[in-house]
Amino acid sequence: MTAFSFERVAIIGFGLIGSSLGRALRSHGLVREIVACDASEEARADIAELGLADRITADPADAVAGADLVIICTPVGSYSALGTAIAPHLAPGAIVTDVGSVKQSVIRDLGPTIPKHAHFVPGHPIAGTEKSGPRHGFGELFEGRWAVLTPLPDSDRAAIDKVAALWHAIGSEVVEMDAQHHDKVLAITSHLPHLIAYTIVGTAVDLEESLQSEVVKFSAGGFRDFTRIAASDPTFWRDVFLNNREAVLEMLQRLTEDLAALQRAIRRGEGDFLYERFARAREIRRGVIEAKQA
Amino acid sequence: MTAFSFERVAIIGFGLIGSSLGRALRSHGLVREIVACDASEEARADIAELGLADRITADPADAVAGADLVIICTPVGSYSALGTAIAPHLAPGAIVTDVGSVKQSVIRDLGPTIPKHAHFVPGHPIAGTEKSGPRHGFGELFEGRWAVLTPLPDSDRAAIDKVAALWHAIGSEVVEMDAQHHDKVLAITSHLPHLIAYTIVGTAVDLEESLQSEVVKFSAGGFRDFTRIAASDPTFWRDVFLNNREAVLEMLQRLTEDLAALQRAIRRGEGDFLYERFARAREIRRGVIEAKQA
Repeated sequence: MTAFSFERVAIIGFGLIGSSLGRALRSHGLVREIVACDASEEARADIAELGLADRITADPADAVAGADLVIICTPVGSYSALGTAIAPHLAPGAIVTDVGSVKQSVIRDLGPTIPKHAHFVPGHPIAGTEKSGPRHGFGELFEGRWAVLTPLPDSDRAAIDKVAALWHAIGSEVVEMDAQHHDKVLAITSHLPHLIAYTIVGTAVDLEESLQSEVVKFSAGGFRDFTRIAASDPTFWRDVFLNNREAVLEMLQRLTEDLAALQRAIRRGEGDFLYERFARAREIRRGVIEAKQA
Repeated sequence: MTAFSFERVAIIGFGLIGSSLGRALRSHGLVREIVACDASEEARADIAELGLADRITADPADAVAGADLVIICTPVGSYSALGTAIAPHLAPGAIVTDVGSVKQSVIRDLGPTIPKHAHFVPGHPIAGTEKSGPRHGFGELFEGRWAVLTPLPDSDRAAIDKVAALWHAIGSEVVEMDAQHHDKVLAITSHLPHLIAYTIVGTAVDLEESLQSEVVKFSAGGFRDFTRIAASDPTFWRDVFLNNREAVLEMLQRLTEDLAALQRAIRRGEGDFLYERFARAREIRRGVIEAKQA
């Protein structure tokens, strides 16, 4: 008799998110065996040293063989090639899910590669830190956070429910939505904030050298929070922007217009306009705190 | 015999910063008597309830009478009127300092009001939180942070040294610089980050109502950090932008250009450019951590 939800889970891309997931699945006793797959030799050495997996491999095809659950945690730009590589090795009835921050491109790139005898359930946990690599993962990362599933009209209901149950079991709330809607919401709540953080830190990097050391020194005035966000993995984020282009550009256009309005108000000394805009923004913070996402 | 650095300190504006300063001065035994002055009835009630001051008043003129140190902690837009109000009541030899986030306008607005028999030492501790009011202050706020002093060429050296010693005593590092340079550095490390945070949160507020609740729900993807920054006091920040107009507009112009370059790269699918920009930004984070300002 076993209470395991899955016998063998293959986690492809065992970095911050993948290793956190591995830790969570193991500590909640949800899987019998964890196969960790990572292209980085350094990551594989860390996984071995920390004892985070039952088996470690660099080869995705090898990793998925015999797995009843495959979780893809690599940057979304890798999905097309990865799908092609693992497809012939997926076991009958295997569930393939992912944690990618964009969902339309994932459905476009990975969807067609998954064979009929397997089940594809696109997913995305809204959780993370600015750190990278298996050393920085932790099993509590998903507790109290949302896991979004964006199943297709023909997705297998039992497979969706099994993936949802897994997220529930490690402390997440689960919501299903349309992939297009997901990409739009995440463009404003996650992609745009990261783009802005990268930009402002980049702007500081380009300052005269004499100013640069002071920018770091006096970063406690607000800048340091942006440097934290901008410390996120560059490959991961490059892929997000390239794969959620339309939604990010639309939100960026709105932001640019709003920024121009504030710029104009500062130039013209319109204090009331500034105050009103700032006071409105403050309200949203209350909502975030009430929603326990602060 | 007494080890007090000052006999009576008047803190005008006893909010987050003012009350933190009061707490720190008292816990380090640096002042004999603290006079708290605040225009808000609610703040005065909180100060009384928490026992944060020896005397509480709503009248700045009353507060500064007999004080050998006056610390102005109100929004910088109030300085001109405040200077005029307190000037006739400043004791001979009294030191007037402040914590304002802009220094050129403070020197312009407050400087001329200070009588010859008192000493003016403009200052700015690079520390704070997004909270407001005396309830949210804490005495450790300034530990390990920088306090910037921007003395004038004719400022009294002994007075500057006494203010510097005070910041040292409560755990800050002290640096002196030119007011114009201060305003430029702070424009990028503090003012622009806040402006951007207010903008992006405002952009989200303007979204269709159906999207708004989801923006809050899924804020853990990065947006929540911006809501925290944008929860800062609107009056305080309105005054900063109106009083550091040139430097903020210059930095905003640079940011807008950099944002346009990233926008273009996303539109054209230039992954290498994005990667290179993001990787550079990551380096700065290391500097912030090494400088112990993370």
